[in-house]
Amino acid sequence: MSGKLWIVGLGPGDAALQTPQAAEALARATDLVGYGPYVDRVPPAPGQVRHASDNRVELDRARLALSLAARGQAVAVVSSGDAGVFAMASAVFEAIDNGDPAWRLLDVEVVAGISAMFAAAARIGAFLGHDFCALSLSDNLKPWALVLKRLRAAAEAGLVMALYNPISRARPWQLAEAFALLREILPPTTPVVFATAISRPDETIDIVDLAAADPARADMRTLVMVGTAATKRIARPGRQRPWVYTPRFADEAAS
Amino acid sequence: MSGKLWIVGLGPGDAALQTPQAAEALARATDLVGYGPYVDRVPPAPGQVRHASDNRVELDRARLALSLAARGQAVAVVSSGDAGVFAMASAVFEAIDNGDPAWRLLDVEVVAGISAMFAAAARIGAFLGHDFCALSLSDNLKPWALVLKRLRAAAEAGLVMALYNPISRARPWQLAEAFALLREILPPTTPVVFATAISRPDETIDIVDLAAADPARADMRTLVMVGTAATKRIARPGRQRPWVYTPRFADEAAS
Repeated sequence: MSGKLWIVGLGPGDAALQTPQAAEALARATDLVGYGPYVDRVPPAPGQVRHASDNRVELDRARLALSLAARGQAVAVVSSGDAGVFAMASAVFEAIDNGDPAWRLLDVEVVAGISAMFAAAARIGAFLGHDFCALSLSDNLKPWALVLKRLRAAAEAGLVMALYNPISRARPWQLAEAFALLREILPPTTPVVFATAISRPDETIDIVDLAAADPARADMRTLVMVGTAATKRIARPGRQRPWVYTPRFADEAAS
Repeated sequence: MSGKLWIVGLGPGDAALQTPQAAEALARATDLVGYGPYVDRVPPAPGQVRHASDNRVELDRARLALSLAARGQAVAVVSSGDAGVFAMASAVFEAIDNGDPAWRLLDVEVVAGISAMFAAAARIGAFLGHDFCALSLSDNLKPWALVLKRLRAAAEAGLVMALYNPISRARPWQLAEAFALLREILPPTTPVVFATAISRPDETIDIVDLAAADPARADMRTLVMVGTAATKRIARPGRQRPWVYTPRFADEAAS
């Protein structure tokens, strides 16, 4: 079987944050497969076919990519951020696991990328400076009770949190419920970060207290991050945004 | 204050995994500061001064970099992986927070990188395919009881784990104790990954069952990752390594 499948993380948006490995895979691909806005981020290449699809059809998209690769094409499936973080890599391997046994013969290569949480943390200091977790707030693929259980475990254990998929048109209420739970556990002054369109021209970053965090601030392009009791702000002169970091050290009381 | 300070994530090793943003900062820097083996990874630039230091002197290194920048130099502090993940970014902001107030006027820019956990997960499939956490096993900066508490919380909540700093000459026993705790909570067949020198010529990756995981397999260049009860292997023909992925979906029982 001669086909090739790359699962490529494009990074958060700025081309300066995309690896040379990703750029090479995109240049060599005969076919691009992905959610429309992500496919649109890839510079045109002569003769390359673009298969743009809607959001929330990850498995269909994975199967299309695998079918094209099985016919001998060189296919790049594109994701924003890192391909393995709430993105297409797990959908592709799920499709392989439950699909045509011949797909196991394909040359599949996952190309890592800069995730939204790394890019957002870098823009404001060192928010993920110690132990941390990444949780999806979506209950499309797991029960909401499990989301709440994980939020509680992370807050009680003193982990910084990056919350992916905080809100969507179909799920407008979940971020508010998540904040309500976290307010029972974490101090009211715990820093919360709303990072939207990170590294893109319309990037916006707001850093607020957990007590004042307004779920309406988030949209589908927003990553929400929640600090711990140890996360600190460093004030800066004038109207500059403070730096925010989580110290490397922790004591029993901080958890 | 005219100085500049970049805190640069070099990625895991392969230059194809280093961002253009990182390459530009390294090329513009008048001074490089970092742990010797990381400084050695940066291609020489004419006139650039290299300040290589030992491991475990992060705060001294941070203060040196800030002092140089405050004297007007363009300084790049280098870390492996992502600068904000168990690396130099939090040490630099800790030094600013507790140091010369003039350091708050500096132009500080964190340059994100591909972390070891993203690179390792990509090499084997989609190990971090759903909710996950990154924990440091070192008790240099936090009590061991807190490390155990976080391991327990993560395992009970069904999070995939990336375990940084699994072992060192001064701490040979901790990984064994961590595995012993995890064996009380997770199924014996839970996949454990030992990923050493990822993306470098001497890369080695072993995927074993938790029941058989031997702490002696890890050295200081090893990232250890532990799956969940849901993490799956996909067998491949011949002597190829299986793919391993954590599905995007989860049910209450899986946690």
